[in-house]
Amino acid sequence: MKKTDLNELRKDPLLGRWIAVLSESVPPSEYRQDLSSEGVHEKSCILCAGRESETAGEIMLVRNASSTNVSHKWWTRVIPNFNPVFKVEGELGRRGEGMYDKMNSIGANEVIIESPHHNVQPEDMGLEQMSRVIQTYRDRISDLEKDSRLRYTLIYKNHGISAGSHLGHPVSHLASTPVIPKRVKEELDGAKQYFAYKERCIFCDVMREELRVGSRVILETRHFAAFCPYASKFPFETWILPKRHNCAFQDIRSDELEDLALILSSMLKKLRTLFPDLSYNYFIHSAPNRVPRKDHWHTLGEDFHWHLEIMPRFLRTSGFEWGSGFYILPTSPEDAAKYLREV
Amino acid sequence: MKKTDLNELRKDPLLGRWIAVLSESVPPSEYRQDLSSEGVHEKSCILCAGRESETAGEIMLVRNASSTNVSHKWWTRVIPNFNPVFKVEGELGRRGEGMYDKMNSIGANEVIIESPHHNVQPEDMGLEQMSRVIQTYRDRISDLEKDSRLRYTLIYKNHGISAGSHLGHPVSHLASTPVIPKRVKEELDGAKQYFAYKERCIFCDVMREELRVGSRVILETRHFAAFCPYASKFPFETWILPKRHNCAFQDIRSDELEDLALILSSMLKKLRTLFPDLSYNYFIHSAPNRVPRKDHWHTLGEDFHWHLEIMPRFLRTSGFEWGSGFYILPTSPEDAAKYLREV
Repeated sequence: MKKTDLNELRKDPLLGRWIAVLSESVPPSEYRQDLSSEGVHEKSCILCAGRESETAGEIMLVRNASSTNVSHKWWTRVIPNFNPVFKVEGELGRRGEGMYDKMNSIGANEVIIESPHHNVQPEDMGLEQMSRVIQTYRDRISDLEKDSRLRYTLIYKNHGISAGSHLGHPVSHLASTPVIPKRVKEELDGAKQYFAYKERCIFCDVMREELRVGSRVILETRHFAAFCPYASKFPFETWILPKRHNCAFQDIRSDELEDLALILSSMLKKLRTLFPDLSYNYFIHSAPNRVPRKDHWHTLGEDFHWHLEIMPRFLRTSGFEWGSGFYILPTSPEDAAKYLREV
Repeated sequence: MKKTDLNELRKDPLLGRWIAVLSESVPPSEYRQDLSSEGVHEKSCILCAGRESETAGEIMLVRNASSTNVSHKWWTRVIPNFNPVFKVEGELGRRGEGMYDKMNSIGANEVIIESPHHNVQPEDMGLEQMSRVIQTYRDRISDLEKDSRLRYTLIYKNHGISAGSHLGHPVSHLASTPVIPKRVKEELDGAKQYFAYKERCIFCDVMREELRVGSRVILETRHFAAFCPYASKFPFETWILPKRHNCAFQDIRSDELEDLALILSSMLKKLRTLFPDLSYNYFIHSAPNRVPRKDHWHTLGEDFHWHLEIMPRFLRTSGFEWGSGFYILPTSPEDAAKYLREV
């Protein structure tokens, strides 16, 4: 998909959701069902170690200090997205258009290369590599939160064709947006309402409830628990919650970071053992940039709690899900957790 | 997917969304990527005319009065869903489970057979057939709204594999739920907020704005307009809005019904001309059952406006969309409308 300098963000007047419109429209002839179904073969993969000069504008690198081999000089590497929807340069330019609202598509779009090797997932390279990937997530968020135009940074991973991935090389993505995305705002609002009523963090309560009941828990480590949520949207959906209450992922301590590498690696391996060709997405939900712009977020530190959600992508959503926002779960969270505990 | 009598509805404590959990869980071995990818061939299709005895419990039929041929004795036919998630019999049974909330999966799940013939879409059978399909939608909603346990009835269509359809026979579906689904509630809330601020219906305002600007309008008939929304979620998304303000689809007049058949047929033909193998969903958003249960809905007649949304399904959603609720539109609504006007 082509992009130019003038992508714009538009607000849905009914639902309050922002969307990005590419300035240079893709014509109908370029649409096929499943645009993303072709993979990239190793020979033509410019994300592999040794071909760094072909991807311009390196943003960050976790260096392999011990290696003298040119093809092993880094462990993780961050580069700009090839076709960024959100761009760093420019002003927000909030303005109206008739009855509608729009602004410029300011933000950041980055590719986090999770491994120097093609087709080798970080969880298969040992805990140290997974820790480096998580450290890269943390460092990028910490860097981007200094930009006061940016309200939110989402880290996400697409694995497999059904999850929207078209690269054979293991990568995560980062998108920073000048607005708080709708799904995140819904979580913030839900957590705020719960806090207003209970004077407790809903995530802390969910954690206690899940550990008490046990039937939906898959794994528990020193600092984290992984469980299938009571009202999962998709079968085998898994949330990883830190035990220590904290709204911001980037405040993770180094012992917690290592522990997150352990539980995330274990969960991905369990899912892939149960479903060898699994497509999945995962993403981190953390607090918005904490520049105190609005009173609305003043309790944020107390009422929000960062977490990671893993969504297996088995099923095609139908008109029922799109039209209603109501999901049907063919496998109960209790049974899904049991299958996952046992592998 | 198997179902038993004890499906349950569960409420997501954070997002307020209800989901349905099947009582008899599908085991991991029965999951494949894209469960729905096999179609049904005509020879084994029990929805075709002449095989009525193989689908029990006929709910409604639009008779072909002029035909003496046994295989043409009806034009549209409604039967119970083969594996209903929502069942008509029973009490709601709202109750708690630890910190969570649940209830029984009361409701209705019906299949609306849109044509007596396999692989023949109603829009290819002429306007009379499309009118009969819409009349069937109306009659089913009018019947189900008498059940005070049911809060909402969604009519939706899945066409093509990417849209979740696995039947070669043209059908729509109906799902009645004892709760207002999240997506519908968001529209009701958004429309209510707009009305509180402007003292006007947001849909009427959008209609006026679109007809004034013109660039996103595809078709205008006597009673309806079809346009690509300003902040579409998917490329070539199209909304059909009635010009007469009314919250309830089932109050459609007969001249409006014929006109809706015309504009819906035209839109589906346009989309299929531009994209011959298109998968799409459409659904009708109408007011919830108007049994006045809550003050919350007291302005409903003024602030909501029924409509039909058509969603082409070209792209696989990725972790970005699922994690953020933020959508990227590769073709602008203005360009999409232009392409659709010109076919």
